[in-house]
Amino acid sequence: MTRAELINQIRTKKTFLSVGLDPDIEKIPKFLLEEDDPIFEFCRQIVDATADYCVAFKPNTAFFEAYGLSGITSMERTIKYINQNYPSHFLIADAKRGDIGNTSSMYAKAFFKRLNADAITVAPYMGKDSVKPFLDFENKWTIVLALTSNEGSNDFQMMKTSGEELYKEVLRTTATWGNEDNLMFVVGATKADMLDDVRLIVPNHFLLVPGVGAQGGSLAEVCKHGLNKDIGLLINSSRGIIYAANGENFAEAAGAEAKKIAVEMAGYIK
Amino acid sequence: MTRAELINQIRTKKTFLSVGLDPDIEKIPKFLLEEDDPIFEFCRQIVDATADYCVAFKPNTAFFEAYGLSGITSMERTIKYINQNYPSHFLIADAKRGDIGNTSSMYAKAFFKRLNADAITVAPYMGKDSVKPFLDFENKWTIVLALTSNEGSNDFQMMKTSGEELYKEVLRTTATWGNEDNLMFVVGATKADMLDDVRLIVPNHFLLVPGVGAQGGSLAEVCKHGLNKDIGLLINSSRGIIYAANGENFAEAAGAEAKKIAVEMAGYIK
Repeated sequence: MTRAELINQIRTKKTFLSVGLDPDIEKIPKFLLEEDDPIFEFCRQIVDATADYCVAFKPNTAFFEAYGLSGITSMERTIKYINQNYPSHFLIADAKRGDIGNTSSMYAKAFFKRLNADAITVAPYMGKDSVKPFLDFENKWTIVLALTSNEGSNDFQMMKTSGEELYKEVLRTTATWGNEDNLMFVVGATKADMLDDVRLIVPNHFLLVPGVGAQGGSLAEVCKHGLNKDIGLLINSSRGIIYAANGENFAEAAGAEAKKIAVEMAGYIK
Repeated sequence: MTRAELINQIRTKKTFLSVGLDPDIEKIPKFLLEEDDPIFEFCRQIVDATADYCVAFKPNTAFFEAYGLSGITSMERTIKYINQNYPSHFLIADAKRGDIGNTSSMYAKAFFKRLNADAITVAPYMGKDSVKPFLDFENKWTIVLALTSNEGSNDFQMMKTSGEELYKEVLRTTATWGNEDNLMFVVGATKADMLDDVRLIVPNHFLLVPGVGAQGGSLAEVCKHGLNKDIGLLINSSRGIIYAANGENFAEAAGAEAKKIAVEMAGYIK
């Protein structure tokens, strides 16, 4: 998906919500366990219920990989389902990969070509040759972890490097490896006021913002500090939406939760 | 596996070699493509041929994951094969994972419990709550990326943070989250002289050293700067061993290459 197409989707649907798919067998409704593939069935129903209110889906690969073969099967089915039924949704493989060049190339092929994801999240620690292979695919996106929403982000990301924090160096340096058409950054919503600093470094890039909802970040604050002329934000909510209820009505409740966020978002889209 | 057991294996076998399993369908011998599961068959033969000369096997999960379901099947078969036939070898899942707490917990369960790996490699960028879940498993090991062997390691790992390089902060900080019985560090062999600095910070920890062989690191240099009283090193070679030849004799050639390294290593074990 191109940047223009993504912006068009956002303006048309009046939402910049990304729905995170973090399926946990211990949290999904019990009645789904009778299905052949409960994880896929859970994701499928969430996707159908929320599609109208979001522009992106973000399967977190860890939650699928944790179940081995059956989990990978569920993930591939989920991704295929989204591709086939919601081709204009932006599909983010939240894999947080990062390895030396030849290995990154293999991951890039797996996610971009075989699974046809639009974007993949990548960890920056191993540097340019671990990120660059992902940037070589036309109309595909690399989303680099800059400032994450967890407590551990204080350990290294906030460490001072020659006067500024490491995450700023990551933004500044990584931005030179790609451009606004193939590179985004993860910036956690739990630090909304830091978005001012982030926007000084990368005013035009899209940011993927996790941490709104269950992790405590505020949509209003993120919008205040993070929006740019092209919107420039994909705000992700996972647990707050997908576990809104866990009875028979779980999908309906997820849809209602997604709608609530989308309605608020519409107010921020000029 | 406990630290004492690992040291005992090293002293008994007089080798501290780790054989890295990076199976690439484009590089493995052509005649294997006739097998039902060429990737597994390649790994199985490499494992059998090199087991006498190494104390560890390190499957790089990316190379398997790149092939989707069939790759994951090959990986699980390979890991099961090693567990069943070489239970005293140290099994490292080179997965370079790193995510927020609940996701890391799921990965930890997947690799330590379901696949029975002894160790997993973990990226430090997301900090303590992304690493800690891996440290909670008895007799299992977390191997944190500190200084990697690729060119991109200069981008962030070598960045100065309040007077010292980031990788040193990673070593210093991460070392406080675990101990010498459950924590190791990845330190690339292409920077052997930096091992002096590394040893000042973590004198007793085991280090997993990639980059010897195909990536140009020297075994003699690594031993000179990295050995400690308990050996304290696992030196990994992947491509230099597994792609030593690619005809009918590929496994034999891999065994010969592993033996050559093991013979040199024996000279460094007092």
